Amino acid sequence: MRNVAIVGASGYTGLELIKILINHPQFNITYVANSTGNTTVKNLHPSLDGVLDIEVVKVDAKELASKADIAFLALPHKTSMGFAKQLVELDIKVIDLSADYRLELDTYEEHYCPHEDKDNLKFSAYGLPEFYEDQIKNCKIVANPGCYPTATLLALLPFVPYLEKDANIFVDAKSGLSGAGKKLSDTTTFVNASENMFAYNPFKHRHAPEITEKVLELTDIKANINFVPSLIPVTRGMLVSIYVTLEDICDAKQILKEFYANDEFVRVKENPVNIKDTSGTNFCDIFVEQNGNALFINSSIDNLLRGASSQAVVNANLMCGLDANCGISKIAYVP
Amino acid sequence: MRNVAIVGASGYTGLELIKILINHPQFNITYVANSTGNTTVKNLHPSLDGVLDIEVVKVDAKELASKADIAFLALPHKTSMGFAKQLVELDIKVIDLSADYRLELDTYEEHYCPHEDKDNLKFSAYGLPEFYEDQIKNCKIVANPGCYPTATLLALLPFVPYLEKDANIFVDAKSGLSGAGKKLSDTTTFVNASENMFAYNPFKHRHAPEITEKVLELTDIKANINFVPSLIPVTRGMLVSIYVTLEDICDAKQILKEFYANDEFVRVKENPVNIKDTSGTNFCDIFVEQNGNALFINSSIDNLLRGASSQAVVNANLMCGLDANCGISKIAYVP
Amino acid sequence: MRNVAIVGASGYTGLELIKILINHPQFNITYVANSTGNTTVKNLHPSLDGVLDIEVVKVDAKELASKADIAFLALPHKTSMGFAKQLVELDIKVIDLSADYRLELDTYEEHYCPHEDKDNLKFSAYGLPEFYEDQIKNCKIVANPGCYPTATLLALLPFVPYLEKDANIFVDAKSGLSGAGKKLSDTTTFVNASENMFAYNPFKHRHAPEITEKVLELTDIKANINFVPSLIPVTRGMLVSIYVTLEDICDAKQILKEFYANDEFVRVKENPVNIKDTSGTNFCDIFVEQNGNALFINSSIDNLLRGASSQAVVNANLMCGLDANCGISKIAYVP
Amino acid sequence: MRNVAIVGASGYTGLELIKILINHPQFNITYVANSTGNTTVKNLHPSLDGVLDIEVVKVDAKELASKADIAFLALPHKTSMGFAKQLVELDIKVIDLSADYRLELDTYEEHYCPHEDKDNLKFSAYGLPEFYEDQIKNCKIVANPGCYPTATLLALLPFVPYLEKDANIFVDAKSGLSGAGKKLSDTTTFVNASENMFAYNPFKHRHAPEITEKVLELTDIKANINFVPSLIPVTRGMLVSIYVTLEDICDAKQILKEFYANDEFVRVKENPVNIKDTSGTNFCDIFVEQNGNALFINSSIDNLLRGASSQAVVNANLMCGLDANCGISKIAYVP
Repeated sequence: MRNVAIVGASGYTGLELIKILINHPQFNITYVANSTGNTTVKNLHPSLDGVLDIEVVKVDAKELASKADIAFLALPHKTSMGFAKQLVELDIKVIDLSADYRLELDTYEEHYCPHEDKDNLKFSAYGLPEFYEDQIKNCKIVANPGCYPTATLLALLPFVPYLEKDANIFVDAKSGLSGAGKKLSDTTTFVNASENMFAYNPFKHRHAPEITEKVLELTDIKANINFVPSLIPVTRGMLVSIYVTLEDICDAKQILKEFYANDEFVRVKENPVNIKDTSGTNFCDIFVEQNGNALFINSSIDNLLRGASSQAVVNANLMCGLDANCGISKIAYVP
Repeated sequence: MRNVAIVGASGYTGLELIKILINHPQFNITYVANSTGNTTVKNLHPSLDGVLDIEVVKVDAKELASKADIAFLALPHKTSMGFAKQLVELDIKVIDLSADYRLELDTYEEHYCPHEDKDNLKFSAYGLPEFYEDQIKNCKIVANPGCYPTATLLALLPFVPYLEKDANIFVDAKSGLSGAGKKLSDTTTFVNASENMFAYNPFKHRHAPEITEKVLELTDIKANINFVPSLIPVTRGMLVSIYVTLEDICDAKQILKEFYANDEFVRVKENPVNIKDTSGTNFCDIFVEQNGNALFINSSIDNLLRGASSQAVVNANLMCGLDANCGISKIAYVP
Repeated sequence: MRNVAIVGASGYTGLELIKILINHPQFNITYVANSTGNTTVKNLHPSLDGVLDIEVVKVDAKELASKADIAFLALPHKTSMGFAKQLVELDIKVIDLSADYRLELDTYEEHYCPHEDKDNLKFSAYGLPEFYEDQIKNCKIVANPGCYPTATLLALLPFVPYLEKDANIFVDAKSGLSGAGKKLSDTTTFVNASENMFAYNPFKHRHAPEITEKVLELTDIKANINFVPSLIPVTRGMLVSIYVTLEDICDAKQILKEFYANDEFVRVKENPVNIKDTSGTNFCDIFVEQNGNALFINSSIDNLLRGASSQAVVNANLMCGLDANCGISKIAYVP
Repeated sequence: MRNVAIVGASGYTGLELIKILINHPQFNITYVANSTGNTTVKNLHPSLDGVLDIEVVKVDAKELASKADIAFLALPHKTSMGFAKQLVELDIKVIDLSADYRLELDTYEEHYCPHEDKDNLKFSAYGLPEFYEDQIKNCKIVANPGCYPTATLLALLPFVPYLEKDANIFVDAKSGLSGAGKKLSDTTTFVNASENMFAYNPFKHRHAPEITEKVLELTDIKANINFVPSLIPVTRGMLVSIYVTLEDICDAKQILKEFYANDEFVRVKENPVNIKDTSGTNFCDIFVEQNGNALFINSSIDNLLRGASSQAVVNANLMCGLDANCGISKIAYVP
């Protein structure tokens, strides 16, 4: 059994980490922290009353290092890198759910802020296990991908080599409202969100450069990603629709099937995917349909799990030499 | 006051017609029918208890013609043309909400069934008032457009001349569940639809040829429409996202503003549109965003009103020489 | 045409007042204000873009009095009485949607705060038209009832004389989330409210004394009101279930039918009521079922309309000698 | 490891049984059947694609008995007793989720149909483990309680001895729509259920006599249960509000705390309970509030788990001498 720490326990991804790790056969939660401390898991998340009664302390790197070997950081970007740096020095394996180690230095500084841990940035791994398994196994910091890039990259990457050069790639990505986090806002009230739907930041979302960068890194192709996120009246879940133009006619369904033939957490589907079938799981479901040279690629994930916390635990499993699926649920919440 | 008939009073669009026409200052409901008759409006739609107590009879063309001058047909395709034909012979103005008079003969027979009223088909008008006002004013049958074509055409048409030739046009269209009608199906139960979202019939929906045909008719350009509809957990409303590539850089926002400068039922918005702001109204809200040569065009309508019943009443107004907006609500249901 | 003012235009009830008054045949909106001013109706409520373009000013009693004869106050309690007092001095008719004039002085001061307009309090009328029509017609200030008391009193009052003396009256009242207002709170986010339901302030809600007081005033019977409100995942609407014990067996359905035989805004139903049938209207639907000496009385209203803004306009109609139903919609939003 | 069979795999409770038993450390699914057979679990429940690939056969008692020792029956009443009878003869332990063994013979035949397995009826146990643990451990058939009786009895029983004699007990019970099963109906479409709420069968639901009978059996007190169920726009979950009058003033909160001090699946809460905190678990959360002699008792369960399938597995655990909580999840789906 390894001892693990969760830092940033108050939010939705913090809660999901706790929910997974409580039952993990190889990890033992020994340290839970948030920015204020002085509370308990049960106070933060009343649904865990009678399940886990553990103190939540104010985060402190040394204390953490005295109690755990692995740390999950569910912190805002910028805060995260300051803290991760200390943990690496203390020889703690870090799975960082923020944006801080996801991007190349230049891209990061253009879209976020000056980077404060450039040394570790170089040696971090991007935590998309289907594509970076070796790096994940051998790094000190895993940069856990955002939910939009996870669902988009898994759907898009099999087809990048077949696309018309320089043509636009359109990503229409719909997220459940838990993706907006716990911070109160007019946008996410029930009255405004229920029976409603709307795009936000079209072509300007910070996850677009993350997608572009990883496509380039993995395929050597500069993709014209045009990314439009929307919020849908759903608590958890994400549905991504990608529209692209093929260079040559190919058998898209066959390409997809072969590409993921050995990946247990990607399911290639014969019908358009839906949100409920992946909700509660680490699965990414993908479907593709072709119309001449036009392609519709369609993926679904649980934004809080495959898009955050369960993928983080898969990454921790790999860092520790465990099976990728150790302690990871495949059973959807449906109905 | 003109006397109007509603045929097909049981469904959602039938209900919406009744709701509009009850308060219409120039139309008087004198005949309401469905396929079985022997009931009342209040029985079919209990919310109208205390509002309108009128008999619903089994549909009969002659009886209708003895009581009304204008008929709204909210019938299934095929049934509709058989009945419309009789009404035209009896000199009744018809607004047909089915697909029967929307398409050229060839297109219709390819996607639906053999046409049984070819004579009137030629002289019917496509009921999208922003583009066919003159024809509507002078025809005997208005073919009221479907909700998907309405929201798509209004958003797409201003930009068709600026698009890259032969490039794909991608339409990602989301419909509320009332769009699926009252027929019971697994897809539309609360348990399956709530907290869920999914595409259906990608690239194969019958509304795609309707869009292609009208674009050609109005712009002389053959558009590669790739149409993917989805169902969202919303009762009423429709949100359409169109992704296209421009031939030349242009000022898309300006083009849109000028295009609809004189159309009172189209609102050009400065932010992405949403469903609630048009729900309950005849408005189509449109927004556009540009990223190099990529365009995101985004429209919202109430699928049952602008996508069916209120547009039908606008068409009836035009046929009768009334102001287009006579009796048409602009006040959204929000919140 | 009378000129009317809306003060407190930013909230949901302010919006509903605007929506009703735009189309009111006898009232003309000439003054709209909120606490800050310097904006427009369209800015506060984007759905009214293209419908009503009117300035929203910082509230000022004298300016209001120079522009309007009747004022609707959708303000917080305490703020409201300070302002209403000035308006009455300026001879403006006031319909106050706050709690400030609803209660006897003692009850008010026990549950809210010291009263600052005791003179007008005495001469205000409680705006439940079915029971206080004469007072409403002849007062200067109407205290518009809250949504919970409206739905509860209309359901309960017909049966009060038949109840077992001193027995408990249980009111289980479910409100849509717009009832909680626009203020952001953890309780009303989509993530926390969707797929959820919970009671709040059981036996301690401030609307309970309002109900008790009015029952006493109208029936001379001291009722043991035990009031438990809940929030349900619904935007608008209210469903009240009242459980009481009869003194003697009686024909509850007949009593109810006769009681409201002449009230056009109360519908006595033969099946349990639902939220959608009254949503968008001023109706209160009521149903009753009997089991020996046990009674289930069940009412439904639109919390923002019959529970606030449309009832306010009915009261204004009565104050002005108009028909109660002038400009009041009976057509539900359903579906 | 014991081999278990699931009969009636198509419905929601069948799916929940599969979801629990897949991960159960002591049970092994060896037989899955429904009324038609010739399919697979993955076909019936696409979310289990990649999780469990097992045939679903047409139900046959002998075949079942050759493959399993314990059978969960998720069948309609009447069908269930015919089949359970055969299984008991074949020495299979049965957990029956239908109504067939829940009631005394007379009560059953009054509310359902003639009983066809009177012998086993006598020796069956009512599967509410907090009250019938010994009987469950020693019977051949467990009659798994319905969701309404589970949530009502757990909340009500601690207080029955303190209630005013002969006074009415009012149960206002709200169920998520999965409680209505998979059968298509107008009531359970998204369009009709969303943004809506309504009672059904007030005072006439078949679960009321089940509650009355068990209260009498356990307390020797004849309770006047007045039961009003409602449907709420929620997929899973149940919230019960019970209103009663006390004979003598007592400390209700203390009584409740002591009553369930040793029950790991009942949580006594200090605030009104909500649906999300128990969703996905076997917990029953209970809260009580007092107002003089009036009591509000408030419970929440997952209707498909504590109200059906997880309670069934707890019962199977007890029948097999395992810990009650073996394989039972305590981690709610929230958010």
